[in-house]
Amino acid sequence: MTEAAARRKPDAITRVKDALAARFGNKLVTSDAVRAQHANNTTWLANEPPDAVVYAASAEEVQAIVAICAEYNVPVIPFGTGTSLEGHVNAPFGGVSIDLSEMNRVVAVHAEDLDCVVEPGVTRKQLNEHLRDQGLFFPIDPGADASLGGMASTRASGTNAVRYGTMKDNVIALKVVLANGEMISTARRAKKSSAGYDLTRLFVGAEGTLGVITEITLRLAGIPEAISAGVCPFPSVEAACNATIATIQSGIPVARIELLDELQVKASNAYSKLSLKESPTLFLEFHGTDAGVAEQSQRFGEIAGEFGGGPFVWETKAEDRNRLWQARHDSYWAMLSLRPGCKGFATDVCVPISKLAECLTATQHDIAELKLIAPIVGHVGDGNFHVGVMIDMNDHDEAVRGQKFLDRLVERAIAMDGTCTGEHGVGQGKIKYLEAEHGKAGIEVMRSLKRALDPDNIFNPGKIVIV
Amino acid sequence: MTEAAARRKPDAITRVKDALAARFGNKLVTSDAVRAQHANNTTWLANEPPDAVVYAASAEEVQAIVAICAEYNVPVIPFGTGTSLEGHVNAPFGGVSIDLSEMNRVVAVHAEDLDCVVEPGVTRKQLNEHLRDQGLFFPIDPGADASLGGMASTRASGTNAVRYGTMKDNVIALKVVLANGEMISTARRAKKSSAGYDLTRLFVGAEGTLGVITEITLRLAGIPEAISAGVCPFPSVEAACNATIATIQSGIPVARIELLDELQVKASNAYSKLSLKESPTLFLEFHGTDAGVAEQSQRFGEIAGEFGGGPFVWETKAEDRNRLWQARHDSYWAMLSLRPGCKGFATDVCVPISKLAECLTATQHDIAELKLIAPIVGHVGDGNFHVGVMIDMNDHDEAVRGQKFLDRLVERAIAMDGTCTGEHGVGQGKIKYLEAEHGKAGIEVMRSLKRALDPDNIFNPGKIVIV
Repeated sequence: MTEAAARRKPDAITRVKDALAARFGNKLVTSDAVRAQHANNTTWLANEPPDAVVYAASAEEVQAIVAICAEYNVPVIPFGTGTSLEGHVNAPFGGVSIDLSEMNRVVAVHAEDLDCVVEPGVTRKQLNEHLRDQGLFFPIDPGADASLGGMASTRASGTNAVRYGTMKDNVIALKVVLANGEMISTARRAKKSSAGYDLTRLFVGAEGTLGVITEITLRLAGIPEAISAGVCPFPSVEAACNATIATIQSGIPVARIELLDELQVKASNAYSKLSLKESPTLFLEFHGTDAGVAEQSQRFGEIAGEFGGGPFVWETKAEDRNRLWQARHDSYWAMLSLRPGCKGFATDVCVPISKLAECLTATQHDIAELKLIAPIVGHVGDGNFHVGVMIDMNDHDEAVRGQKFLDRLVERAIAMDGTCTGEHGVGQGKIKYLEAEHGKAGIEVMRSLKRALDPDNIFNPGKIVIV
Repeated sequence: MTEAAARRKPDAITRVKDALAARFGNKLVTSDAVRAQHANNTTWLANEPPDAVVYAASAEEVQAIVAICAEYNVPVIPFGTGTSLEGHVNAPFGGVSIDLSEMNRVVAVHAEDLDCVVEPGVTRKQLNEHLRDQGLFFPIDPGADASLGGMASTRASGTNAVRYGTMKDNVIALKVVLANGEMISTARRAKKSSAGYDLTRLFVGAEGTLGVITEITLRLAGIPEAISAGVCPFPSVEAACNATIATIQSGIPVARIELLDELQVKASNAYSKLSLKESPTLFLEFHGTDAGVAEQSQRFGEIAGEFGGGPFVWETKAEDRNRLWQARHDSYWAMLSLRPGCKGFATDVCVPISKLAECLTATQHDIAELKLIAPIVGHVGDGNFHVGVMIDMNDHDEAVRGQKFLDRLVERAIAMDGTCTGEHGVGQGKIKYLEAEHGKAGIEVMRSLKRALDPDNIFNPGKIVIV
């Protein structure tokens, strides 16, 4: 039990629900189905529903909800689309889930400044639809069509991160409601600033544990004049990794460079009706001018050849590219179709790129040794990869082996100077690994920050750090 | 007086000096000259020397110094090269300056990972000398040959930031000594992570007020295969700004795009023996392949022509480029030579690029109205510019007008959704503007962070936020 929960009066939840009902009417929902839907449902963690869900339509409403919850020491869990993978939206201590999906306005697009201002419930696909006519796009693309508030909160990235960076790099400013009900702007719209502590980066990746994001200013990119994309098979995962390293090192500004291991290629061939050679394969994309993407594509083809890869077949037609990337984004569903009836657990780690081949090879060895079915896809330009572990939940022994595999995966990544999560976040699922990664003193700094900004621990308690 | 100073016993300084002398011998220096040299000497702020300077040679020594100072509530001021511009190294409450210039080892270069690990006293030029043979470089280049610890602490940037980002984007991890004497690593060497709060960005830009940086892991870039650079005159500052916006928007990955106003061109012609046309001028650089830089240069030339600029003359020979950029980096000295005997005050603001032309034009209007001599140079691709205000310090009225100008400059930038400092930091000089920029609630969050990490306010008190 948290300290706040211990201080909470027995009837606190009832009082909060009454106060929210008085203010929000039927925007407050307490049905079992809606509460369960607002808790975790994409991992092996238990579903821990909040006591109530309230749909906020404005920053002022968020402030009101936080004030009511704070008065009674009742937890507040911000909710976007619920697509996080480590139990971020679970309510282990009960409380109120603030559903932000109705805060979905694109507030402003500043085309000249290559930025925009959105409410947290806007999803990445919605934003890109909105931007397309202006020749702009927002490059960060986690697998799901997540909300931008959730993406900021989990420091999300995706296939374009190797060129465009992650949410850390693409959030310019935030509006955040604090535990005392006040709202701050973390920064101005200037492209850079050295005016004090970096409040923006304090809340990016904080997973709703320090405040509730109510507005986001994002950096945008121009839709490239020309795009080329293609696939390139390799004789081994190691060869594909080495070609990736050489590509990054040679300064080719690759926009996407994604690895699918042999098993994932097989799954994607079946699910997405592709006819790729069943060997480790890189999916690539290059952005630039016509001459630029041709030059980049040719140079990559040469590098691939040096490592025994190829042929590298590339296309500039949008329909061919879209089919390819749809298959890449469907890799999760393709994986599930490998073993119907099983549950798929998606996890990720990230290591320095020089360690990637070694890390991937050892991971595949583990998978074989533990007799698991677990395809691998990787944002290899960043040293980041995902493993989808397929578990028959009726087979206890297999579930135990699956957990052992996950522990080993993280242990290995940290031993290689990597991180227990490149882009999924900590939530509940990866708390146990944080001390190995940051040390006791580092965790203590995180606790100090949490206590400083949320002294009563009302914001998403039980995530990232236990205070 | 700070709280810590109030709690400090009368003989605290003496006791600290005794303890440091016992441990550090002649690495502890208390001469007036050395103390004065370790306080601010590049702004109009008073020189406020520390009580003592101690030269640290290792992280363990930094920990020992912090522990001794903490025991007696004596301030600790980290010192790199002393080239900051807002009084960052002054000691308004006395205390001990830790000179980190002897911690100048390049600890490791990981060429495959495009990163390196350095001690905080390594300067940017020293690092680039070290890297050159490996085909790598570190792109962040503030005017001075600053230490990398100081650059991290002030969130420095420079002419390459438009393409390569600032210290915020190029610091991967830090080792930091905390107020309790413990040392943390803020992150692993993986290129990205979502494993908890962003401790790295907490210390980047914190100006030594939250801890002392003892090691830095930096992202590197490959030295481009080809580089082209050139100059392009424009009929007005507005035309140059509009060409800049169009260049950025069109996706040309310009590596440097620097504006010199007419007065600065005149000064640089005289000082650096150039023969540029005396009109607002852009200095540019493009990085890529031979074909790539040729294409970028040509496209920029076309854009410039659309705004009445040109001719754009570009070169790929290293000696021509070096002469150009040397002149750009010497703009401060060129400015000083405009008015011998006067003092030059360099300041900076940053606005959304769409506001840049308006901001620059209004700034030039102010300069004329206030009868000041103040050339302008700008990292215009980022909306960031510097004004060098030349003041005859014997002329009180001129000094008053100079201060009025600085106030107006910041007020205008903030009104345009910009920041009071793009890359110089807050130090002592810009504290008074922070509330207008961040609001009372934002400053209160900064105070909470400061109190959480440095409860006795021993780290660089009197900078960024007053607690």
